[in-house]
Amino acid sequence: MRSYHLDSGAGLAGLTVRDHPDPVPGAGQVVVAVRAVSLSFRELMIANGDYVLPVKPDVVPISDGAGDIVSVGPGVDSRRIGERVTATLFPSWQDGPFGVEHLPQRGGSLDGMLTERAVIDADALVPVPRHLSYEEAATLPCAAVTAWNAVTGADGLRPGQTMVTQGSGGVSLFALQFAKTLGARVIATTSSPEKALRLRGLGADEVIDYRAVPDWPARVRELTGGRGADRVIDVAGLLEQSLKAVAMAGHVACVGFVSATSPPLDARTLFASGATVRAVAVGSRAQFLAMNRAVEVNALHPVIDRVFPFDQAHDAYRHYASGKAFGKVVITV
Amino acid sequence: MRSYHLDSGAGLAGLTVRDHPDPVPGAGQVVVAVRAVSLSFRELMIANGDYVLPVKPDVVPISDGAGDIVSVGPGVDSRRIGERVTATLFPSWQDGPFGVEHLPQRGGSLDGMLTERAVIDADALVPVPRHLSYEEAATLPCAAVTAWNAVTGADGLRPGQTMVTQGSGGVSLFALQFAKTLGARVIATTSSPEKALRLRGLGADEVIDYRAVPDWPARVRELTGGRGADRVIDVAGLLEQSLKAVAMAGHVACVGFVSATSPPLDARTLFASGATVRAVAVGSRAQFLAMNRAVEVNALHPVIDRVFPFDQAHDAYRHYASGKAFGKVVITV
Amino acid sequence: MRSYHLDSGAGLAGLTVRDHPDPVPGAGQVVVAVRAVSLSFRELMIANGDYVLPVKPDVVPISDGAGDIVSVGPGVDSRRIGERVTATLFPSWQDGPFGVEHLPQRGGSLDGMLTERAVIDADALVPVPRHLSYEEAATLPCAAVTAWNAVTGADGLRPGQTMVTQGSGGVSLFALQFAKTLGARVIATTSSPEKALRLRGLGADEVIDYRAVPDWPARVRELTGGRGADRVIDVAGLLEQSLKAVAMAGHVACVGFVSATSPPLDARTLFASGATVRAVAVGSRAQFLAMNRAVEVNALHPVIDRVFPFDQAHDAYRHYASGKAFGKVVITV
Amino acid sequence: MRSYHLDSGAGLAGLTVRDHPDPVPGAGQVVVAVRAVSLSFRELMIANGDYVLPVKPDVVPISDGAGDIVSVGPGVDSRRIGERVTATLFPSWQDGPFGVEHLPQRGGSLDGMLTERAVIDADALVPVPRHLSYEEAATLPCAAVTAWNAVTGADGLRPGQTMVTQGSGGVSLFALQFAKTLGARVIATTSSPEKALRLRGLGADEVIDYRAVPDWPARVRELTGGRGADRVIDVAGLLEQSLKAVAMAGHVACVGFVSATSPPLDARTLFASGATVRAVAVGSRAQFLAMNRAVEVNALHPVIDRVFPFDQAHDAYRHYASGKAFGKVVITV
Repeated sequence: MRSYHLDSGAGLAGLTVRDHPDPVPGAGQVVVAVRAVSLSFRELMIANGDYVLPVKPDVVPISDGAGDIVSVGPGVDSRRIGERVTATLFPSWQDGPFGVEHLPQRGGSLDGMLTERAVIDADALVPVPRHLSYEEAATLPCAAVTAWNAVTGADGLRPGQTMVTQGSGGVSLFALQFAKTLGARVIATTSSPEKALRLRGLGADEVIDYRAVPDWPARVRELTGGRGADRVIDVAGLLEQSLKAVAMAGHVACVGFVSATSPPLDARTLFASGATVRAVAVGSRAQFLAMNRAVEVNALHPVIDRVFPFDQAHDAYRHYASGKAFGKVVITV
Repeated sequence: MRSYHLDSGAGLAGLTVRDHPDPVPGAGQVVVAVRAVSLSFRELMIANGDYVLPVKPDVVPISDGAGDIVSVGPGVDSRRIGERVTATLFPSWQDGPFGVEHLPQRGGSLDGMLTERAVIDADALVPVPRHLSYEEAATLPCAAVTAWNAVTGADGLRPGQTMVTQGSGGVSLFALQFAKTLGARVIATTSSPEKALRLRGLGADEVIDYRAVPDWPARVRELTGGRGADRVIDVAGLLEQSLKAVAMAGHVACVGFVSATSPPLDARTLFASGATVRAVAVGSRAQFLAMNRAVEVNALHPVIDRVFPFDQAHDAYRHYASGKAFGKVVITV
Repeated sequence: MRSYHLDSGAGLAGLTVRDHPDPVPGAGQVVVAVRAVSLSFRELMIANGDYVLPVKPDVVPISDGAGDIVSVGPGVDSRRIGERVTATLFPSWQDGPFGVEHLPQRGGSLDGMLTERAVIDADALVPVPRHLSYEEAATLPCAAVTAWNAVTGADGLRPGQTMVTQGSGGVSLFALQFAKTLGARVIATTSSPEKALRLRGLGADEVIDYRAVPDWPARVRELTGGRGADRVIDVAGLLEQSLKAVAMAGHVACVGFVSATSPPLDARTLFASGATVRAVAVGSRAQFLAMNRAVEVNALHPVIDRVFPFDQAHDAYRHYASGKAFGKVVITV
Repeated sequence: MRSYHLDSGAGLAGLTVRDHPDPVPGAGQVVVAVRAVSLSFRELMIANGDYVLPVKPDVVPISDGAGDIVSVGPGVDSRRIGERVTATLFPSWQDGPFGVEHLPQRGGSLDGMLTERAVIDADALVPVPRHLSYEEAATLPCAAVTAWNAVTGADGLRPGQTMVTQGSGGVSLFALQFAKTLGARVIATTSSPEKALRLRGLGADEVIDYRAVPDWPARVRELTGGRGADRVIDVAGLLEQSLKAVAMAGHVACVGFVSATSPPLDARTLFASGATVRAVAVGSRAQFLAMNRAVEVNALHPVIDRVFPFDQAHDAYRHYASGKAFGKVVITV
């Protein structure tokens, strides 16, 4: 079986494929025949060497993937063979708040999913919602769970409240879908009329073109009768602006990934906002399961921009890095 | 101007109309030209004399109503004249948890809305959502706010969770609409195929005819993979059954109104359920405002069964008491 | 090594001791040299055959115990040998809400702690707070974790609020200690002046002798300016009375264990209370850890009534069953 | 009767006293004979002209004060005459979250308490806890309510958790007292051995002299086994450091008042912390009442540094501005 490998900072040129003997699951583990993986911003950071968490040498990259259980190790019920599963990003984070003990992560300090056969702890998987394909299920672990946590975590968004999303990356689109699913009003920012149309197609109530309206926080205030939005999903580290757009007692979910040039935040802006800023690091397996129930009940489908075959992983990375994708970039295995 | 009056326990025969001089608002008050009122189960209880809270003699009955502000008293901004408003049921309950200090209630210990002109504290009103008629707005204060509190209160229902409603009274229909609006799955119980169809039309994912399936809690368990529902809106005091239908760590919202024959609850059933039972008494003005935002953002419309003119208030009561209504019974003023 | 064994319903006569070879830990397991165990009401119910959950035949009884790790199985860090540990009651309940998947329990469907050597999952243990003896640590898994959950769970008791405890069983004494630790006011009920003194010694602000004052709920209302208590820890299934003692929007934690004669609850009492009743089934390992931090920071010591040696387990059961104990009954191993 | 007056930015020289006729309470108002007021950092900011919120010209300064009701206006129960009361800082913030509608504040856009007779809305007062003097009660509205909100708000600090306070200003001392009252562990930072001793006297478990240990966040991590503190009360805008001291999923309460030189925050620090930062703006009247219950049940006394007579208001301001006070500075009226 074949796996891609990468060293942190090696760039796309360092992404190579190698043959391995088929893996054998240890106690409490299963082998998953991976069927699809998806790219998140973290994959670019790892390739570029500026990821915030440790990355093992020669890692099998990509945190997000879905497939079938094909064998089980000691202590795992053999009836699970054949289950369609998605892997969780932080294998040991089952429930409750995040802590340092949960830091080991797939496709970083642990091997990831850009492989034909992955060995995974049996309790680090969730079932694939019945109406989703492998390609769709592979988009969920990082971006969708992050969006779910950002939208529903910490005294979550409520029906009738107003939420702001920024741009059309994976987290933003999932956040938009989840917010509409739970009856909120969504104001989306974007940089082009084409994307604006697609955002409205996904349910955005208002779209602000931040090139045409650079002071988008002021526009958010106008659209909310002066109060500001109840929640802002900040995907770009634009905290100063997000805090100007959020209501008193509102909530800014800071989901990263902050670019090297993101401007510093004046503490007075934060204090004057009367709001809360929360750093969101994906979510627990319990949150993933809860999200999947919502995805299933509401027949949601992830937005997929384009699907590449296993042999064209480099092209997939390049396409994703171009920033032109609207939705997730997937590689089938 | 004319008002209906009633003594607790006087029955429908005691419901009479009288003429009065036009009222003058006191400090902090306004006069509302009532345009529509709606009936709730409490109105029957008051007429029958078995209401749980105090009722003043010769009360102007009916808690729920909507209209226009036509004059303001000292200390109230005169620009409010012309506002379309709905009155809150507990005028002093602005926000936070309910307490004994909030017990005075409209159409009970205080005069109600079955009148042409009502004097109301300026802070005991909420604006009518723009897309609602007076008839629709008049259905909200008791049933809709109760349903909103039952569904979204106390660590509220989340998208993807499963909720059970019982029958097709006002609270149950609003609860169904709110739960679907926030992305939950709804199992509704009913007693007839006709109502089952209408419940499905409102979005119910599953409908159980409890005449055909008397052990509906067992059916709820089947439909939830054995776990039970995450939340049950108990409108009939059937706590024993509701607790058999609810999941461990689930929630039963007990919204009354309990009939005289409702069976007692074995404390062991409650303990074994591992669940929480919460008594829900309408909701605060802050909850009403939050609900109206959700109603507006999602363009929800209350289900109205039938509208009667002011002069046929007795017929309206009789129709409501027949139990045949699907949705709210309204009287225009 | 020796273990006691018991069949559900066999009574004390059925409690017998047998020799076994020393156990070998499996993958992910450890062997604990048990140093002390403690009795809870569930042990009497199991001996009497009226326990609510399944009990395996010939079970090693008693859920609660503490000791030292003496060997570890594959996959467990051998540096854990020597750790002072307490076992959790529901081994698979790590965090989050309780569910049917957490039902297997120590000393019931799984073997318990009345043994010299217990095989335990490595993740079903918590460290013993440094200032506690084994005897003290052995009192925590059932009664203390239940009390912690009852007091701090579900929008927990806050400083300055008023809580009611009933009697002087294990849960009630721990609840009293925890509530005083977090700055609340405690009203304790009891049946004797001697116990009243000891309850005051533990910090109770008020003690009501329910023999002298049978309508203790009315007395609670007097002591709270008519509002009622913010929280009642109901250990006896006296829900009707607890609901009369609790404030509107207050909380009754129903911790069982309900006797066969506990009176049924009128649903109208529950509705009229405006309160919440929550069934509390011990707590998760995460709650146990949080409790231990509070125990350690505040240097709390469990109240131990009497300690029996391993050979006098029958006497320990008898003493506990007599109902005369003030605090926990412990057996050293 | 006499009142002090001040223009924003006029400095201490601008603080002057003038005679007025005795005020007459309007509808819903009372007159309070002020007995004591206390100084908060906001008073210096107003004198210096750098306060963040609007200040009326010729304002009667100082938000915090206590006294007796001596007369009542129309609509207020005359039995309230004689009540010992403290005024709330934001008169219209009764309960629920803060919003723009609550911005008018005493001693800022509204007249304050440095006067012999203050006219106050009847619902903008709370009773003085029985065991407190007027001087003590006058310290509560700004600093104590802020500390209460910072410590107990937003999924509040729990027994056994660890909290960090910074220095020995009013908010920090109240936060320390509240955290110890609710069973938490407190690590306090300070700049002198004398203050360290006094902080320990108030219950601090650990004190870090940040002159001797400039990297106090690292020391906090050492003292918490590497995890960091569960909550940090940031009174100085040192968010970068506070976020280095706080645990993942921990909470930083940002209570201002941020100095002009407070360093900007790198958004990456916030994201990497995995924590939440919340801006805390005093608290609602409901929070004030809840705090007073805790103060009363636990017989807490505010720490008062020094008391000045009405005629020496300038000296009081100067003493407070010197930064030497340990605890609150009070002026009797």
